[in-house]
Amino acid sequence: MKNIKTAVILAAGKGSRISNTANYVSKPLLKLYDMTLIERSIFNLNHKLNVKKFYIVTGYNHDAVHDFLEELKNKINVEINIVFANEWEKGNGASFLSISNIVKEDYVYVVMCDHLFNDSFFETIAEKNIENNKCYLAISKTLSQFNEFNDATKVKIKNGNISHIGKSIKAIDGFDTGFFVIASQIFKYIGNMSDEKSISLSHIMQKIADNNHLCCIEVPARSWLDIDTKEDLEKAKDFLFDAANSKSNDGPVSRYLNRPISNRITKQIANFPVKPNHISLVSFLLSLLAAIIIAFKGYSFLVLGALLAQLSSILDGCDGEVARLKNITSKYGGWFDQILDRYADLLLITGLTFHTYYLHQSLYVFLIGILAIGGSLILSYSAIVYDPASKNIQKFRMGRDVRIFIILIGSIANFPYVTLLFLALLMNIEVLRRLWVLKDKLDY
Amino acid sequence: MKNIKTAVILAAGKGSRISNTANYVSKPLLKLYDMTLIERSIFNLNHKLNVKKFYIVTGYNHDAVHDFLEELKNKINVEINIVFANEWEKGNGASFLSISNIVKEDYVYVVMCDHLFNDSFFETIAEKNIENNKCYLAISKTLSQFNEFNDATKVKIKNGNISHIGKSIKAIDGFDTGFFVIASQIFKYIGNMSDEKSISLSHIMQKIADNNHLCCIEVPARSWLDIDTKEDLEKAKDFLFDAANSKSNDGPVSRYLNRPISNRITKQIANFPVKPNHISLVSFLLSLLAAIIIAFKGYSFLVLGALLAQLSSILDGCDGEVARLKNITSKYGGWFDQILDRYADLLLITGLTFHTYYLHQSLYVFLIGILAIGGSLILSYSAIVYDPASKNIQKFRMGRDVRIFIILIGSIANFPYVTLLFLALLMNIEVLRRLWVLKDKLDY
Repeated sequence: MKNIKTAVILAAGKGSRISNTANYVSKPLLKLYDMTLIERSIFNLNHKLNVKKFYIVTGYNHDAVHDFLEELKNKINVEINIVFANEWEKGNGASFLSISNIVKEDYVYVVMCDHLFNDSFFETIAEKNIENNKCYLAISKTLSQFNEFNDATKVKIKNGNISHIGKSIKAIDGFDTGFFVIASQIFKYIGNMSDEKSISLSHIMQKIADNNHLCCIEVPARSWLDIDTKEDLEKAKDFLFDAANSKSNDGPVSRYLNRPISNRITKQIANFPVKPNHISLVSFLLSLLAAIIIAFKGYSFLVLGALLAQLSSILDGCDGEVARLKNITSKYGGWFDQILDRYADLLLITGLTFHTYYLHQSLYVFLIGILAIGGSLILSYSAIVYDPASKNIQKFRMGRDVRIFIILIGSIANFPYVTLLFLALLMNIEVLRRLWVLKDKLDY
Repeated sequence: MKNIKTAVILAAGKGSRISNTANYVSKPLLKLYDMTLIERSIFNLNHKLNVKKFYIVTGYNHDAVHDFLEELKNKINVEINIVFANEWEKGNGASFLSISNIVKEDYVYVVMCDHLFNDSFFETIAEKNIENNKCYLAISKTLSQFNEFNDATKVKIKNGNISHIGKSIKAIDGFDTGFFVIASQIFKYIGNMSDEKSISLSHIMQKIADNNHLCCIEVPARSWLDIDTKEDLEKAKDFLFDAANSKSNDGPVSRYLNRPISNRITKQIANFPVKPNHISLVSFLLSLLAAIIIAFKGYSFLVLGALLAQLSSILDGCDGEVARLKNITSKYGGWFDQILDRYADLLLITGLTFHTYYLHQSLYVFLIGILAIGGSLILSYSAIVYDPASKNIQKFRMGRDVRIFIILIGSIANFPYVTLLFLALLMNIEVLRRLWVLKDKLDY
């Protein structure tokens, strides 16, 4: 495996077809979920492919992009070199050629800054065995709903190599995803193009292909997206959302009720500079409020509190979603959220216990309430070992989403004592079940 | 690194000096903490050095050892070959020679079954770079209190190689630990010894040393022990206990009060076929009983219950100690114990809460009791992330041992309400403190 640590990001174009966007400065500075395209590109290449050194080729509105990158340098621990392409107006091929005398590495990734890629895209790239002195273009055999046929650059394949590349070729074998692996040796095949008025990247790649040096890496159709127009920006948001939220071990209530709603909320709030930990905190405060309201006497308080608790449970999904969208997930953030969730559970069932006690005036209520609290907290405690160990056998996850939903249903039905009793039984039996299921099943 | 996967265990001797032990059958079948020497030897070589194939050389009371090993084969997943040494009565050298035509591997470990080794011993062996066609003897430069000078085999070193080996040599540079790495090539240097009446292993090793093929691996003095006499068996128990219980992240009450007592209990009960999970269960049932007793009205119940809880907390250390002594630690066992501990905490503080309520008849008692329960359980929940992350900064671990001890002190002082309030504050403040301390400190 070649250990490629360097990437060239082409960020010089004007983006004429998208420049009608509000507050447009430059394509690389377009924001999706409060993160610029160029920052996301650098972040992904660094995190997913371990790229440590970047050449960013600028052109249109160079100063703004330059200032942004200078500021970014202070925030992230990678080497960023800014290369101004004098002839950027000739096309992205000219931008590419501007690095030919600058890049000293044998192999570099070359990426268009207006293309987005998901995890499976990067995984495919990382696994590809790069042969000596060959260039590679990542292609998909088909186009997903995220990309337009007319805008796409097409390729034709012959004997495993790319033989033709361009927007208007016939007999198409695949589509250019805007991601290249370039062996710097190949600059010699390109020759002097300074007399040409217009130089597209496809034009240059065709020269490399003519020398039988352009291979392909096949990636899934849904793993990439090209942003050309204002409409593409909306598609890009959906693309990023899918990419960030495809994996989960949600329980049933979360999957069918909470997630669809929290997804909508997240798509809205992620456009603002809101931090995931703040969302966790707001969700917790909502639970605290819900617990206090539930503790009051009267059916209406019970229902209002339970509804607030459910709302808090929905909002509780947003912190992780926002973090994944903005690529700012952190172990601390996850832990902080989990601890607050435990306190929210503790407070809610405490509220329900006091509400029930006021109705029934029996000390048994407290015993049962305490067992429901203990069972809930110990169930979450058990999940830290149980969840990873039972990934493949777990069909119905008994988690926080189910717990809060039971409280909601029980409250609407106005059976607080039954709800408490049911929770106490269900939570503790589930702990016992987990102890039983994993018996002799845990590896050491 | 040579990847040595084969070991020869010499288990043929009569063990005359130890055969006066009660129920003595054969040295390899001597039990320490309910585990035979031969089984412990196989287990350690497999787990610590990844040995997959064993040649066990038998002699004295061959049938009994043979039957034991045949049964062991069904229990563990390694290859065991039993080799009967016809001439075992000539000495351990003769036993060693019996494998010369059987072992096909280039390198094997050769180990005396009556020697014990700790983890740091095996780590030193695993890290040693074995040169081609060289043999190695693990030596310690000094003797620990575990070994007798007169019984030890001594070595002399010249130019980094062992030049002399024997019990009575002068000018000693180190001591033979009974652990060898043997290149099977060297059998050619030994020659035919069938005419000799007595063949000791030292005698054979001296021949290898004479050919400059015996190097040494230096190990710590306290990392090994040789069992020759009945008295050595008691030393061996201490040795194994130290080896099994040297590392811990105990809290202060555990370290200075619980551990010293639980260690004594463990040394006794580990001689019987008692399972760690059963100890966990007994400790839990004791806590359950303690919780019920505490809940009763009256000072004497409070104190009796708290004392039982403290006893349960002491016993709670024994399950892990026994598991480590018998080499049967398991992830499930640890998890099972942790879950039961959480239930024990839940029940004890619930008992204390009801006791306090009977005294004060105020609903605030339940609120405070619930916060003490919640804080305790969430504190344990937080420890799963906090403990590994704070290994180097944590000086005073606020864990279960401290919690139970606070209940004991508060109960003896007859301040149940203050105790409950103190627990509620302390546990929840400690959770907040942990959240604060790890802020921005967790790696992803």
